Amino acid sequence: MKINQNYLNVKKSYLFTEIGNRVKKFQSDNPDADVIKLGIGDVTLPLAPVVVDALKKAADEMGEKQGFRGYGPEQGYDFLREAVRDYYLKRNICLEANEIFISDGAKSDLGNILDLFSECNTVLVPDPVYPVYVDTNIMAGRKVIFADGTEENGFLPMPDENIKCDIIYICSPNNPTGAVYSREELKKWVDYANSMDAVILFDAAYEAFVTDEALPRSIYEIEGAKNCAIEFSSLSKTAGFTGTRCGYTIVPHALIREGQTLNPFWLRRQTTKFNGVSYIIQRGAEAVFTEAGQRQIKTSLDYYRENAKTITEGLDKLGKKYVGGKHSPYIWMRCDMPSWEYFDLLLNKANVVGTPGAGFGRNGEGWFRLTAFGDADATKEAVKRIIALG
Amino acid sequence: MKINQNYLNVKKSYLFTEIGNRVKKFQSDNPDADVIKLGIGDVTLPLAPVVVDALKKAADEMGEKQGFRGYGPEQGYDFLREAVRDYYLKRNICLEANEIFISDGAKSDLGNILDLFSECNTVLVPDPVYPVYVDTNIMAGRKVIFADGTEENGFLPMPDENIKCDIIYICSPNNPTGAVYSREELKKWVDYANSMDAVILFDAAYEAFVTDEALPRSIYEIEGAKNCAIEFSSLSKTAGFTGTRCGYTIVPHALIREGQTLNPFWLRRQTTKFNGVSYIIQRGAEAVFTEAGQRQIKTSLDYYRENAKTITEGLDKLGKKYVGGKHSPYIWMRCDMPSWEYFDLLLNKANVVGTPGAGFGRNGEGWFRLTAFGDADATKEAVKRIIALG
Repeated sequence: MKINQNYLNVKKSYLFTEIGNRVKKFQSDNPDADVIKLGIGDVTLPLAPVVVDALKKAADEMGEKQGFRGYGPEQGYDFLREAVRDYYLKRNICLEANEIFISDGAKSDLGNILDLFSECNTVLVPDPVYPVYVDTNIMAGRKVIFADGTEENGFLPMPDENIKCDIIYICSPNNPTGAVYSREELKKWVDYANSMDAVILFDAAYEAFVTDEALPRSIYEIEGAKNCAIEFSSLSKTAGFTGTRCGYTIVPHALIREGQTLNPFWLRRQTTKFNGVSYIIQRGAEAVFTEAGQRQIKTSLDYYRENAKTITEGLDKLGKKYVGGKHSPYIWMRCDMPSWEYFDLLLNKANVVGTPGAGFGRNGEGWFRLTAFGDADATKEAVKRIIALG
Repeated sequence: MKINQNYLNVKKSYLFTEIGNRVKKFQSDNPDADVIKLGIGDVTLPLAPVVVDALKKAADEMGEKQGFRGYGPEQGYDFLREAVRDYYLKRNICLEANEIFISDGAKSDLGNILDLFSECNTVLVPDPVYPVYVDTNIMAGRKVIFADGTEENGFLPMPDENIKCDIIYICSPNNPTGAVYSREELKKWVDYANSMDAVILFDAAYEAFVTDEALPRSIYEIEGAKNCAIEFSSLSKTAGFTGTRCGYTIVPHALIREGQTLNPFWLRRQTTKFNGVSYIIQRGAEAVFTEAGQRQIKTSLDYYRENAKTITEGLDKLGKKYVGGKHSPYIWMRCDMPSWEYFDLLLNKANVVGTPGAGFGRNGEGWFRLTAFGDADATKEAVKRIIALG
């Protein structure tokens, strides 16, 4: 028996553990301090009423002989695949329902999609980055190279023709920086990928935060993308599904590599290693895409957007450099000192918790992530304290 | 870009598609025929009332600011891990809660667990077999060898010291044969695995059908099993969760290979490639393990057991050879002709649908699977027709 030795090469992530430990110690030393957390990348507002109703109705169905459903299609029920298809169609993106696979969230599929690719592929990942892109590839023994996101390029690295790679990760709006690619910029990535037969794994988890129609919310707004890109999205941030778990992955029929159409490859993977998302949860997800659902989630999205505005206006007053916060729940600010040092300063002097940029990669050093997912009043208070700190 | 060429070696499974096509054709040719389906391996009775109540209560919680839950622990909430721990403890199996990982079903984890092992391992799989054991390994390029289940060994193959392997699949009560290993037999497998540092992947999805206390429901009833076995189980067949999706995987702390404890390996896999099961579903699963839940699921299990008895008594009358049906929802009968031929005979002459054994492997030829998951009256009628057919 040989274990997968690649697991030994995965760096242990101490980021959120270390944050938790420092906050815990501070709170135990300062039991009266009113600590405000703007570090967490998780939603806080409840599910929309139409979603709750749909979940309960489906639970009732499952309790009755007539309404009961056993195994569903691994790739998702047609009612939900069609709802996602129509959601894209409203933005003039034409997909076939069978190009859409319902998942239990973008994280699962971003990891599992790698089953389809050889382990000798080279992977290009932006830095700073959501750590899962790197770790899932290290676990499989793939070579990972980085595209630098820096202040100079607005944390939107562009392709370099001299660099050869096979799998490319793009997250826009970005976690952790909140930066958003333009259509012209994404077009360059699509052309680059097609020119070298690479595949783009496009993480669209934050698409619902984009309000400017000039900015792309899907890679499929770009000509040629169906020939090179798989898109992952989720209701986690769109509709508060982080604990409810539902997302979707799009594998276009036009995506062909080494003579093989990848859509049936993914179907084969899912029918062999997955049994589909709970019927109950799929009914809840379907409700998100109804007219009432879209109206109700907009209220929550607007609430988070208002928080982001509170933060960016505060940073503007302070004259702090930052990206994000416009079409993203994340604000990525320059902290002009090592990011863990700023973390301690903010915690000790302002009793505000954020996330040190160093936790997201080499280029995150000197930067700091704040999130818009908190309580509105608490966010206002936190910003006041950050301004007072100067 | 190189794709994973191993996918091209996976045989397309035509079994259920072919069954579907033949049934469809028959029904279109004979629109008035009352076709009874005893082929499907899926439950038909609704969820228990306590489960439905728990699901709805959790959905309500998620709709309120105070009760809302975002990201949960990837490995499952403590309330459910502890409920599973206590479920085992009732059978005198001591597990720690952090040896239990909540999953969206046994199928996902049976596939994903392979991430932990090198691709150069040799895999021993029984034949006949649940096709997923084979396909998931072919997809990763592993060598698969078979242990023959035959009429002579009661479809319970035993280890052969001359055969070397690294990963061993055991499913007991078995799908498709319904055969159940005794403790003494499982002990031989455990000793064999430990003697060669192999890992047993034990599929316990049908454990709840065992009523004889002399028969093991978990591999951990066997001394030494914690040193070599990972157990997969599910509420799918136990509590009608095939469409609701919840199971659990046990990776004991004592399981060490190549100097590495596999429990933190699996934790690392799950925290990197999974975001946990929906909070709502976990609350529904928790209800299964309450006193009321156990009482309510027993009603359904007894209903299926009664169906199994109807079938086995019918086969006894006919003098047909079979295994299973006692501690299993599956009855595996000798059909004394090529199994697809018997399929057609049964469909055309008795209007009953079953599953040809050939679909489960080489040793399935000449055998036929009937299931106890149908309606009680329809099952009685089907058995009458099978008897009439002789």
